[in-house]
Amino acid sequence: MNGKETAIVFIEFQNDFCKEGGALYGGVKDQIQAQGTVKNAQDCIQKARGKCLTLLVPITFEQSYADMGCEGVLGPIHANVVNTKAFQKGTWGGAIIDELKPTPSDIVVEGKRTLDAFNSANLDFILRVNCIKNVAFCGFLTNVCVEGTARSAYDKGFKVFLLKDCCAAISAEEQKYVEEKFFPYMGEVLTHGEFLARLE
Amino acid sequence: MNGKETAIVFIEFQNDFCKEGGALYGGVKDQIQAQGTVKNAQDCIQKARGKCLTLLVPITFEQSYADMGCEGVLGPIHANVVNTKAFQKGTWGGAIIDELKPTPSDIVVEGKRTLDAFNSANLDFILRVNCIKNVAFCGFLTNVCVEGTARSAYDKGFKVFLLKDCCAAISAEEQKYVEEKFFPYMGEVLTHGEFLARLE
Amino acid sequence: MNGKETAIVFIEFQNDFCKEGGALYGGVKDQIQAQGTVKNAQDCIQKARGKCLTLLVPITFEQSYADMGCEGVLGPIHANVVNTKAFQKGTWGGAIIDELKPTPSDIVVEGKRTLDAFNSANLDFILRVNCIKNVAFCGFLTNVCVEGTARSAYDKGFKVFLLKDCCAAISAEEQKYVEEKFFPYMGEVLTHGEFLARLE
Amino acid sequence: MNGKETAIVFIEFQNDFCKEGGALYGGVKDQIQAQGTVKNAQDCIQKARGKCLTLLVPITFEQSYADMGCEGVLGPIHANVVNTKAFQKGTWGGAIIDELKPTPSDIVVEGKRTLDAFNSANLDFILRVNCIKNVAFCGFLTNVCVEGTARSAYDKGFKVFLLKDCCAAISAEEQKYVEEKFFPYMGEVLTHGEFLARLE
Repeated sequence: MNGKETAIVFIEFQNDFCKEGGALYGGVKDQIQAQGTVKNAQDCIQKARGKCLTLLVPITFEQSYADMGCEGVLGPIHANVVNTKAFQKGTWGGAIIDELKPTPSDIVVEGKRTLDAFNSANLDFILRVNCIKNVAFCGFLTNVCVEGTARSAYDKGFKVFLLKDCCAAISAEEQKYVEEKFFPYMGEVLTHGEFLARLE
Repeated sequence: MNGKETAIVFIEFQNDFCKEGGALYGGVKDQIQAQGTVKNAQDCIQKARGKCLTLLVPITFEQSYADMGCEGVLGPIHANVVNTKAFQKGTWGGAIIDELKPTPSDIVVEGKRTLDAFNSANLDFILRVNCIKNVAFCGFLTNVCVEGTARSAYDKGFKVFLLKDCCAAISAEEQKYVEEKFFPYMGEVLTHGEFLARLE
Repeated sequence: MNGKETAIVFIEFQNDFCKEGGALYGGVKDQIQAQGTVKNAQDCIQKARGKCLTLLVPITFEQSYADMGCEGVLGPIHANVVNTKAFQKGTWGGAIIDELKPTPSDIVVEGKRTLDAFNSANLDFILRVNCIKNVAFCGFLTNVCVEGTARSAYDKGFKVFLLKDCCAAISAEEQKYVEEKFFPYMGEVLTHGEFLARLE
Repeated sequence: MNGKETAIVFIEFQNDFCKEGGALYGGVKDQIQAQGTVKNAQDCIQKARGKCLTLLVPITFEQSYADMGCEGVLGPIHANVVNTKAFQKGTWGGAIIDELKPTPSDIVVEGKRTLDAFNSANLDFILRVNCIKNVAFCGFLTNVCVEGTARSAYDKGFKVFLLKDCCAAISAEEQKYVEEKFFPYMGEVLTHGEFLARLE
C-alpha cells in the first residue's frame, strides 16, 4: 500500500472520551482499558507520521452550544453532549489528549459536529486534494462515529480499514458486532501493527 | 406528528431483493418471511399516501456497470452487485416490486448508487424543499442501506424512525442489533402501524 | 491529457432549451444560433465517445412538480420552470435532444434538480469512482448551471475546462463575462476542437 | 422577515483581504474603498447581533499548506493563495479583522478551504440545525466566494440576499455584473440598511 495515497483518521481522541474526569469517560472506560485504545493509538500515530497522512478529527461545540441549533432539532446523542457539557471549545474536556497532541506532521480536520465526519467537517476535501485512496479509522465510538465516517468513505470510493485495537465502543458486544459483522461488508479489520506493516 | 412535515422512505423494494429469482433474494429471503417485510411495507405505503410524503428509493446501475467506475475502486458490497448482475436499469430485477409500484402520489428518488442514499441520490434536496422534519425508514438491508441513510438523516437534523416490521437484514441477529443497540442512539424503533397512528 | 482521467459533461441539452417550441427556447435561441451550440456539442460528443467519459446531465421534474417542494421554498429560476411547464419527466420538452441522444457509451447522470448538478445529481459519485481528474463543461446556461457546476468541480479538486462553443447564455454579454472574467479564475476556456486535440 | 429564521454570513473578513499589508489587499483595495465595505459590514454586524444569527466564515490553511493537497490538484485561485502566503492559521493575515471580531453572539463557521463555503465548511449544518430560512451574504470576493456560496444556499432551498454595500470584487465591472445580472436570478440585492429594516 502506497503511503502517499494513505491516511489514518483519529476520531475524537479528546479528554472527554479518554481521561478520568472527562464528561463521557465513564461509558467507555472499560472498553478503553480492555482494548488498550489510547496506548495503541499513540503508538500508531507516532509510527505513521511521515509514512502516510495523519488526520486528527475532534468534535467540538461553542461553549453556549449555539451551534447545536434550535431546541429539539438534534437527537439523543447530541442531547447527551449538552447534558454532560462535553466537547466544549477552549476547555480541557474538548482538547485532544496529550498522547495524540498534533504536531506539524498532522492535519487537524475542522468542523465536526455530526456523527459522520463527512456531514460537517472538511474531511472529504482534505482527503481528495491529498490524492488519498486508502483510509484507516481509529477512535470513538467504534459503532457510532468511527463506523459512520467509514461508511461514507466507502461510498466515496476510498478503500477502508478499521484499526480494531485503536477504537472503543460502549460494550464489547458492540465492538465485536462492528469487527465481525458489519465492517467486513466494506473493508478490512486489522490491528494498527498489521496495517502499518503494509505501508510502503 | 404533522403529516405535512413527515416522509416515509422505502429503500430498495426491488425484485432483486424481494422476489424468487431476484439476484440477492437468497440472502434475505428468510428474514423477509420472518418479518413479513413486503406485506407490511405495502400496507404502510397504501395507508400513508395522502397523509405524508412517500418516497421510493431504488438503487440502479447501467447494464454495463459503467457507473460502478474503475476496476477495484468500489468495495465488497458493490463487487457483489456486479457478480450477481443485480440492480440493472431496464431489467426485471432492477424494477420496483408491483406491491410498491409508484403512483402519482409518490416521488421516486433518483440516483442511488451508494449505501447511504444521501451520498448519491437527490434525497436531501427532496426532503428539504418539501419542508420535512420527520423521516421514517423501511427496506433493505436494515443494517446497511437503511441504517446508513438514517444515520445521515440524523446528522442533517431530521427526526428519524425505523419501521421495524418493514425492513429486513441478512440475519435475525443483525436486525436485532439495529433495533435494540444502534437505532435508539438516534431515534425511535416502532411498527408501521404505531408510526401511522401518530400522523395527523 | 489522459482520456481515461477525463470527462465531458453535457448539461441540459433538452428540447425545452434547444428546440423551437421548447419552454425556454425563446430566451436562449439567439445565443444558440450565434454560438452554433447544438451543432458543436453534437460534433463534440461524437468525437469524444470512446476517448473519454461522456456524461449527459438533464434536469427533470415530476409532472406535478411535487419534487419542487413546498410553495415558495425555491426561488425565481425554479418558479420560472414551473410557470413555463419546463423539464417535465416523460414529455418531449424534458427529453434529451436527438442530436445528443445517449448511446451505451454515455452515462446519463440522474437526479439534477438544482443549478449546480453536484447539489442533487449523482455527478460527484460518477466522476470519482471513474477516477476522473479533468472535467470539461458544455450546455445551458453558461453563467448559471454550467458555471455553477464547474465551480463545485473546481472546489472538489478537478481540473476544469469550459468548451465555449458548446454553451449558451441568455445574452452575449453574460457569455463574454464567463469566458473572459470568471472562468479563468478556475480553469481554461477553449473550443471543443482545441480540447479534443489534447486528449490522448 | 422573522429574525429567528434569518442569518447573515460574513465571508473572509480577514486582514489579508481588508488591511494595508494584507496578502491580497492590493487587488481589492479600490473596491473596498469605493464601496465602504468594511465600515458597512461592521455597522451591519453590530446592528444584527441579537436580532438574527450572525456567522463569520474565514478561510484558513495550515502554515505548511498541507491541507492544499498534492501539487497541481487545486487550480489558479488556490495557487495564488500559496504564492502570496495568504490565509495562514495563527498569523495576522489569516485573522478576522478587529472591526468584525467575533463575540459570544456570533458563530465562527469552521473548515472553509474552498470557494463555495458549503464544499468544505460546516455552514450547511449550522444553518439547518438553527432552523434558518433566509440567508444574507457579505464579504469577498463578490463574484467568487460570496456568489459561489449564495448559489449553493439557493440550491438548498434558502432564500438568498446580497448585501451589496458589504461586499467587494476586484473591479467595479464584476461587482455590477453580480448585482445586476446574476444575483437577481436567485434572490434580492439590497443594502444592509434595507435588509435590517425588514427583520422582525
